[in-house]
Amino acid sequence: MSIQVIAFDADDTLWVNEPFFREAEEKFSSLLEDFMPSHAIMKELYHTEISNLKLYGYGIKGFMLSMIETALRVSDKKIPISLIEKIIGIGQEMLEKPVDLLPGVEEVLQKLNGDYRMVLATKGDLVDQERKLKKSGLEQYFHHIEIMSEKRVDDFAKLIQHLDVAPEKFVMLGNSLKSDILPVLELGGHAIHIPFHITWAHEEIQHEVSHERFNSVENITQAADLIRKM
Amino acid sequence: MSIQVIAFDADDTLWVNEPFFREAEEKFSSLLEDFMPSHAIMKELYHTEISNLKLYGYGIKGFMLSMIETALRVSDKKIPISLIEKIIGIGQEMLEKPVDLLPGVEEVLQKLNGDYRMVLATKGDLVDQERKLKKSGLEQYFHHIEIMSEKRVDDFAKLIQHLDVAPEKFVMLGNSLKSDILPVLELGGHAIHIPFHITWAHEEIQHEVSHERFNSVENITQAADLIRKM
Repeated sequence: MSIQVIAFDADDTLWVNEPFFREAEEKFSSLLEDFMPSHAIMKELYHTEISNLKLYGYGIKGFMLSMIETALRVSDKKIPISLIEKIIGIGQEMLEKPVDLLPGVEEVLQKLNGDYRMVLATKGDLVDQERKLKKSGLEQYFHHIEIMSEKRVDDFAKLIQHLDVAPEKFVMLGNSLKSDILPVLELGGHAIHIPFHITWAHEEIQHEVSHERFNSVENITQAADLIRKM
Repeated sequence: MSIQVIAFDADDTLWVNEPFFREAEEKFSSLLEDFMPSHAIMKELYHTEISNLKLYGYGIKGFMLSMIETALRVSDKKIPISLIEKIIGIGQEMLEKPVDLLPGVEEVLQKLNGDYRMVLATKGDLVDQERKLKKSGLEQYFHHIEIMSEKRVDDFAKLIQHLDVAPEKFVMLGNSLKSDILPVLELGGHAIHIPFHITWAHEEIQHEVSHERFNSVENITQAADLIRKM
């Protein structure tokens, strides 16, 4: 058995996440439809989010602050103050969402449990991700939880060093080619892409990935089967 | 030498933090002086923060959202929308503050370096704390950085287990009796209190601490001298 450590991304790999953001964006843009058409508001919001990313990082709190900032800007501060309360409500509702596991996740973790060291490597807000993990009931399967502010090459290098595993015995599973796949391949690790039907624009890359240590599968059950054969 | 691992709290132990919150609270309450006297606004803000703590966790982004929520509530949604922009400005300014090291910090870390394994154990927002650590120039001294969503007994238990150190060879330094001292004593570790002149109400405890593995000193230089003798 050549793989020792399996690292799982969380959002949109173990559980549903991005659709909640899309749902929130739609609610948000409908609040502002008097000022701008929906697609233009979404674009403005995205620009605000990206320009605040360094300051706020990933996660719902930063998203809430970016929605408020966008509402002020696109309305030229003409929105009624009650809209601010509604925006906070949209965010708080997101924070209280239940965790929907993706199909096969629990079974796969149960089956791999004991045969591999399994870790969770997720980007995002600390409190947010810990809450989701607790709600998911999956905590017991993970030897180590790493909540990362970014998933760049040197962030994974630290993780792999910390886990004291050779890169060729490490495999990362995730839905983002940019964050879960490319940095791990660069470090000499294996990576399996499990695409999710929605990807945040910021996580998109414009080229195909082809690499001897890279695979793309349809779901987590296929990923587990592949790991057994590696 | 009986101590092997020294864990340092960060905010108000290595660098200034709480005064920036007080400064922000004052700016915030002066924006709302038409609606309520300053001390009453501070009290309202504190209540909002505490009731949002589970949802938002610690850190500036949650503080910003709590300021906005408080402003809507105390004004009965009568504030001009431009105030929201000013509140966001207060928070963004906090996020961009330089890091002011407390006296003696760098010298102490330099001197202890090599003789002990030093770790940073801080509560707060991931991006926020990583940014401050980077700005501080202190990252090089720490064997491990732990950003915790809470500092309760079981959070420290995980940390001590992760560091693979016996509790009696572990000492925690910090300014909060509630978060840095009591949970560590309960686990069998040593704890040194370095009081800071301002403490957030939420971190205050109403009783004295007296314990054979507890000490209180005036500054980090004294703490280091004490550790050498332990």
